[in-house]
Amino acid sequence: MRMLCACRVVFFRLSPLSRAGTMVLPLVSRWSARVLWASPGWRRTYTQRACVGLKRLGCPRGVYSPLAHRAYSVVAGGPEVTLTPERYPVQRLPFSTVSEEDLAAFECIIPGRVITDPEQLQTCNVDWLKTVRGCSKVLLRPQTSEEVSQILRHCYKRNLAVNPQGGNTGMVGGSVPVFDEVILSTALMNQVISFHDVSGILVCQAGCVLEELSRYVQERDFIMPLDLGAKGSCHIGGNVATNAGGLRFLRYGSLRGTVLGLEVVLADGTILNCLTSLRKDNTGYDLKQMFIGSEGTLGVITAVSIVCPPRPKAVNVAFLGCPGFAEVLQTFRTCRGMLGEILSAFEFMDTECMQLVGQHLQLTNPVQESPFYVLVETSGSSAGHDAEKLTNVLEQVLNSGLVTDGTMATDQRKVQMLWALRERITEALSRDGYVFKYDLSLPVERLYDLVIDLRTRLGPRAKHVVGYGHLGDGNLHLNVTAEAFSRELLGALEPYVYAWTAEQRGSVSAEHGLGFKKKDVLGYSKPPVAVTLMQQLKAMLDPEGILNPYKTLPAQA
Amino acid sequence: MRMLCACRVVFFRLSPLSRAGTMVLPLVSRWSARVLWASPGWRRTYTQRACVGLKRLGCPRGVYSPLAHRAYSVVAGGPEVTLTPERYPVQRLPFSTVSEEDLAAFECIIPGRVITDPEQLQTCNVDWLKTVRGCSKVLLRPQTSEEVSQILRHCYKRNLAVNPQGGNTGMVGGSVPVFDEVILSTALMNQVISFHDVSGILVCQAGCVLEELSRYVQERDFIMPLDLGAKGSCHIGGNVATNAGGLRFLRYGSLRGTVLGLEVVLADGTILNCLTSLRKDNTGYDLKQMFIGSEGTLGVITAVSIVCPPRPKAVNVAFLGCPGFAEVLQTFRTCRGMLGEILSAFEFMDTECMQLVGQHLQLTNPVQESPFYVLVETSGSSAGHDAEKLTNVLEQVLNSGLVTDGTMATDQRKVQMLWALRERITEALSRDGYVFKYDLSLPVERLYDLVIDLRTRLGPRAKHVVGYGHLGDGNLHLNVTAEAFSRELLGALEPYVYAWTAEQRGSVSAEHGLGFKKKDVLGYSKPPVAVTLMQQLKAMLDPEGILNPYKTLPAQA
Repeated sequence: MRMLCACRVVFFRLSPLSRAGTMVLPLVSRWSARVLWASPGWRRTYTQRACVGLKRLGCPRGVYSPLAHRAYSVVAGGPEVTLTPERYPVQRLPFSTVSEEDLAAFECIIPGRVITDPEQLQTCNVDWLKTVRGCSKVLLRPQTSEEVSQILRHCYKRNLAVNPQGGNTGMVGGSVPVFDEVILSTALMNQVISFHDVSGILVCQAGCVLEELSRYVQERDFIMPLDLGAKGSCHIGGNVATNAGGLRFLRYGSLRGTVLGLEVVLADGTILNCLTSLRKDNTGYDLKQMFIGSEGTLGVITAVSIVCPPRPKAVNVAFLGCPGFAEVLQTFRTCRGMLGEILSAFEFMDTECMQLVGQHLQLTNPVQESPFYVLVETSGSSAGHDAEKLTNVLEQVLNSGLVTDGTMATDQRKVQMLWALRERITEALSRDGYVFKYDLSLPVERLYDLVIDLRTRLGPRAKHVVGYGHLGDGNLHLNVTAEAFSRELLGALEPYVYAWTAEQRGSVSAEHGLGFKKKDVLGYSKPPVAVTLMQQLKAMLDPEGILNPYKTLPAQA
Repeated sequence: MRMLCACRVVFFRLSPLSRAGTMVLPLVSRWSARVLWASPGWRRTYTQRACVGLKRLGCPRGVYSPLAHRAYSVVAGGPEVTLTPERYPVQRLPFSTVSEEDLAAFECIIPGRVITDPEQLQTCNVDWLKTVRGCSKVLLRPQTSEEVSQILRHCYKRNLAVNPQGGNTGMVGGSVPVFDEVILSTALMNQVISFHDVSGILVCQAGCVLEELSRYVQERDFIMPLDLGAKGSCHIGGNVATNAGGLRFLRYGSLRGTVLGLEVVLADGTILNCLTSLRKDNTGYDLKQMFIGSEGTLGVITAVSIVCPPRPKAVNVAFLGCPGFAEVLQTFRTCRGMLGEILSAFEFMDTECMQLVGQHLQLTNPVQESPFYVLVETSGSSAGHDAEKLTNVLEQVLNSGLVTDGTMATDQRKVQMLWALRERITEALSRDGYVFKYDLSLPVERLYDLVIDLRTRLGPRAKHVVGYGHLGDGNLHLNVTAEAFSRELLGALEPYVYAWTAEQRGSVSAEHGLGFKKKDVLGYSKPPVAVTLMQQLKAMLDPEGILNPYKTLPAQA
């Protein structure tokens, strides 16, 4: 790996052309203020200037709200996606087929919201990555839990398979039908039920879009405890159903802690109301946990109670270039030690990621080209204190050569633009060709080894092999692009990647879930006893197996 | 309520007699430095002095480690505890009785660790509150999961009921047998399996004592994510099995987020190994969640993987007197707003609690007598920043009359002594007579109303009616003491307290669980559909019902 010697810190300046909220980010103007780290004197000056700078700019109360909606429009064109059963070895299970009588029954339950128009059905049958496609003939759009209950009661009696669908932003083909499952969309279940402006507890229907909820609670001085690239489309119910991780996991933890209550409709239409708003409740088994991360296979989440943290008064983002992965790790340790409770994100990306966001999205690298980049975010209650802590960190990592170049932002729009570099990698990849996606938990020390290994293994068969992700959580997003889907490339990747991960006692799905595409690799991360128990749980809650079939669990022998 | 007008802030000074680690705290010397808040000038002086004081004292790296081991010795004497079936309406289920052949089989599995001596069995048959007593004839002390597995396999075949037992510090009679269940103790399963000094992930056997783990990780610059009064005796396995909340919940959240993996032995002896050390793992259903908080009724937890937060560099504690509950609430809001991410605890207690810790434990009130007291703790990475934030808060709450008197501590021993005032309330209550204990989640605004209500309702029938708890989590510990157990008093309390709580949509068990004593009140907080589902889950995992019978779920009709 190349060592970059020039050390500088760049104060981020926004081009006057840039506008928050636009889909395509304008070219980011390159830094306009540089401080060369030639002598200790300079370093001191930098520290002082940084603090003054922050104070002068004020302490924006706004928090990061990424621009990057997933660019559906961009990937919606092109050739038709291969039908899932044509690409993958999967047999339709003996469910009934939707009849005219079924359609009439649905129409009775949700008049005017039974969609059978093939054009409207098209987008619901295909995942956003355009890798799997079902052939459902009907999309149902209930507005209430009672309607969901009646629909499921009907499907249960009629042995009709059901595919619950939120924002359809999943990465593993869990949100679209495999065959002709009835699509049950939460899109019209988008009402906030209540918000408590002292406790920050939000209760809402499952179909609320994450970004809209973010806006709603931010106006009330709170933030959502989760944030992810797909926020502009994903539904909170889908987030919970897939136990989404995302960008705030490091600071605010898992949905298993922040979700306080759920309302779920079970396979037979029974409504399970565990929609409490209590931070603590040890009365019996915590049933809601069964549904968090169950990908719609155990029940349909219809409402969510979630605790929102207070909106931080100050947010700072530093974007840094590192000469090697060892330095990335050491920078993380330094940040965790020195930033402590205000560290709210530590993301990394490799140089190929940066090239891809430049090439496909015209985003500009704000720092000197480096083998690795990290994005460090702090969120805290005192702008002055936070800036001082971050400045101390930057001084330390630059002095010690862990970081060769960096830029810092405190203004909300600039913060967003730095975040876009990390967040829009997924979008850039999807424009690069067919993407083989892996989302792995690995021991942090070995997080990048697999990327290097795969580059050698695949050689020119892959267009790009890139690694990025939530380093603070030990979560690598490993992506391989190719001109088109190729069985040969797939064969070179799998099971190799899974076996490699299992050898490290890692997880073959850190946050994306298993859905359709990863269901057969469950055994790489879970022992047979666990898989059997999962199957028993599924049989208990969904004895007919009508809920999101062909997903999450491997087909039983 | 009496309004206290004198405003002063007291710097806590430790009596030379006091020794950390002793069971009975010496008298705390009363404050020796007072700053009268007569004018804005004085206030400024206070602020400056507080900061200087903190700097002078240095920034203790030590974190709070409460002295209060639960005083078993104190409550161990006295008359024999009534056998549970004599006080409560409960019928023995048709389990087998332990035979000589069973004892021989156990002896083969764990030679020398099969205890049948009645004296040794005595303490394991009685809960520490001396409210329930079983009559088990055998205590088993396995050292490994394999041994637990063999024991359960035998019990399952023989239809022998099993009572898993950790530190036996539970509040709801969940940890002792009701009849003659085999006691399966985790006491000898007390080995640390691994600790990762970068990630802070600890893997250990279930019988490790929380305080010992705390010490272990503190030596490595981390802390346990939970802390509770019983830390000197409770086992981590028991903590997880009961989903313990405790004193760090506000900051580090629930065990549902911090526990990364579990090893569990199922009813039939099958070992379920989900002992991963990954922060993120979305491969299939998160089975470990079923066992967290299941009180040993679904499986026996034999090992735990838990993520420990870095040890904070600075800990400050303020102990404040408030003139009314409205002011307690407003002080909480002020602290949350101004302390943000460094607020690590916000506890409250009423004046009767203070009287009891004074009367029974000779602890001295370090501030002027007030209707309410709050303990505010900050934990952060910068002593200077944290002290500045806390000082600003204190200035604000004193100026606005929310607080009438206060004292602050940064030194570890002094921090511990302030904490003892809050933490040893349970112990003081147990010395006051028979204690009727309620652990409720309520809307924070109404948290104290029930205490006032009950004082009127019970009149002189109760010795004391006290309220204290984790205000930041909406968790009230409501305790009523009497000279002895009384059915009449119980009748005045129940179901009144539960119905009152249900009316507020609260939880009848915030953190203590249901165990034996609360199992029949589950329906006040959970709908029938949920209770049915819990029963199905129990039947699935423990079809013979041998694991901790008569606990958690109401007896089926």
